[in-house]
Amino acid sequence: MQPKKNAVIKNPPDARFVVEDVLKCKWTLSVLDLVRQGVYRPGAMVRQTPGLTTKVLNERLQKLQSFGVMTRTVYPEKPPRVEYHLTALGRKLSSILDGISELQKEMDSTLNA
Amino acid sequence: MQPKKNAVIKNPPDARFVVEDVLKCKWTLSVLDLVRQGVYRPGAMVRQTPGLTTKVLNERLQKLQSFGVMTRTVYPEKPPRVEYHLTALGRKLSSILDGISELQKEMDSTLNA
Repeated sequence: MQPKKNAVIKNPPDARFVVEDVLKCKWTLSVLDLVRQGVYRPGAMVRQTPGLTTKVLNERLQKLQSFGVMTRTVYPEKPPRVEYHLTALGRKLSSILDGISELQKEMDSTLNA
Repeated sequence: MQPKKNAVIKNPPDARFVVEDVLKCKWTLSVLDLVRQGVYRPGAMVRQTPGLTTKVLNERLQKLQSFGVMTRTVYPEKPPRVEYHLTALGRKLSSILDGISELQKEMDSTLNA
């Protein structure tokens, strides 16, 4: 038997949990957006995002990896280059987040109508 | 100025809030599924859903109306017939929920691979 808590964090069996968790955290959303825009390196992410610290970024990147949403690749250069990319799961999650943005637009236009 | 709390409940400005709220409540998800399956009347909803009480159903229906996701129509018959239907917003929300179900399938197949 697996320890339950670890199982939930490392292999989340629940897409709802992942979506809720991502929606709740503005930095997680920012990191996903950055990678989608082609910003793959942690240093560049921090530079492009006022208020985002390396500590918070690393936490979010680890979480997204544990969700199976992102991969971490280390290129054997000097100094080593590290890049994060979306997985197939991450692209699916992104399209759900796009859907929520569209829902937001629809809501805004309903309110203003 | 509007009272803030009411404003949030009656005209949710935030699609993320709505998605999170819907995902968190199994009865809300059930009610949305029922309406999508063509079950429009509260009585039929209760009969088809073991464990769902009229009280809980009415709360969820009111909430979905306040989100702009469902409409309530009263037909002037004897006794009056009441039906709930999805709005355009509700259909958009449903397609987001479908996306999350697909994400779940993808996660399950990743875990089993």
